[in-house]
Amino acid sequence: MEHKKGLFISFEGIDGCGKTTQLELLNKYLKEKNYETIVTFEPGDCEIGKNLRQILLFHKGFVSDIAEMFLYLADRAQHIEEIVNKNVNEGKIVLCDRCIDSTVAYQGYGREKNIEQINLLNEIATKGKKPDLTFIFDADIETAQLRVGKNKDRMEKEGSEFHRKVREGYLQLAKKYPERIKVINANQSIEKVFEDLKKIIDEIL
Amino acid sequence: MEHKKGLFISFEGIDGCGKTTQLELLNKYLKEKNYETIVTFEPGDCEIGKNLRQILLFHKGFVSDIAEMFLYLADRAQHIEEIVNKNVNEGKIVLCDRCIDSTVAYQGYGREKNIEQINLLNEIATKGKKPDLTFIFDADIETAQLRVGKNKDRMEKEGSEFHRKVREGYLQLAKKYPERIKVINANQSIEKVFEDLKKIIDEIL
Repeated sequence: MEHKKGLFISFEGIDGCGKTTQLELLNKYLKEKNYETIVTFEPGDCEIGKNLRQILLFHKGFVSDIAEMFLYLADRAQHIEEIVNKNVNEGKIVLCDRCIDSTVAYQGYGREKNIEQINLLNEIATKGKKPDLTFIFDADIETAQLRVGKNKDRMEKEGSEFHRKVREGYLQLAKKYPERIKVINANQSIEKVFEDLKKIIDEIL
Repeated sequence: MEHKKGLFISFEGIDGCGKTTQLELLNKYLKEKNYETIVTFEPGDCEIGKNLRQILLFHKGFVSDIAEMFLYLADRAQHIEEIVNKNVNEGKIVLCDRCIDSTVAYQGYGREKNIEQINLLNEIATKGKKPDLTFIFDADIETAQLRVGKNKDRMEKEGSEFHRKVREGYLQLAKKYPERIKVINANQSIEKVFEDLKKIIDEIL
């Protein structure tokens, strides 16, 4: 992968897997090596997205499964165009907390929606754009739940059976796209997880 | 059509065609005949929809075409489940200002998106539910623009070439689904348009 063109890296995994911490560590590491980076996330890191994130994660009333899925897709379409493509085209390394694989894992596997359909919807939302590289931080449900703590959002409040299906979804995705997706054992200490992450990144850059 | 099961009627047409006025007249007329009715609209007539309507019609910054389409679909999914199906199942006549055909006409024909894809997306959003009956109020662009006046929302601000394509889209839809969709000449006076509408309704009920 040529860095001049920029790079789009997504961070995935169940809630509490530690991906956000690792994203921040990698960002610091890359900046020290003089790479231009930008940190972003889904849902919500674009102008209309703030509103959508509020609904998706904190709405108290009923949200239909299908509405939920379309809201994630609307946010993604806007985010890819407004933030990701723009920065990748400027040659930056875009570090993105959650992207297309979250929808397949959470709505497809977790909520048991049609996965072929979600792939098509992702394709429409991103106009075919995919991350160049994706890290899945794979942790046991129990370990992850402990890390999430007590202040849970709408998705985090789902039971452990739901998160078990989501985790399984992520592992299936990694099997399906071994070129793009790298799985890292996230049951280890923060330092050890970052060692594994750095090894992969150093090989690529 | 058996009224006990309820009835789902949608009102469609370009901005300024007079559909909302006709919907209100029909509502009054049906109530006088002791039908149980409910008036609703897209986008925005459900709890999360208020937020989405705000983005869709009044957001000042950039909204990507694809994000716009997914927001309409999210609103629709929620609206059909929360409002339409619930009331139709209770045996009411649901009068709905805009629904599936708006997306085909505005995003498909107006913004020239893939129409087969929009049909599929509508199908996913509504889980296959369609209005039992749809009225398209067909008016000249010039007549309609005069009625809209000066306080225009995001969609109404689009130029007349856009609205010309949307109108053409509606007429194509009417040709494709003659059983479900009835076209009414909306260049006439309010009274005359309502006469035409009443004729069709009286035949059906």
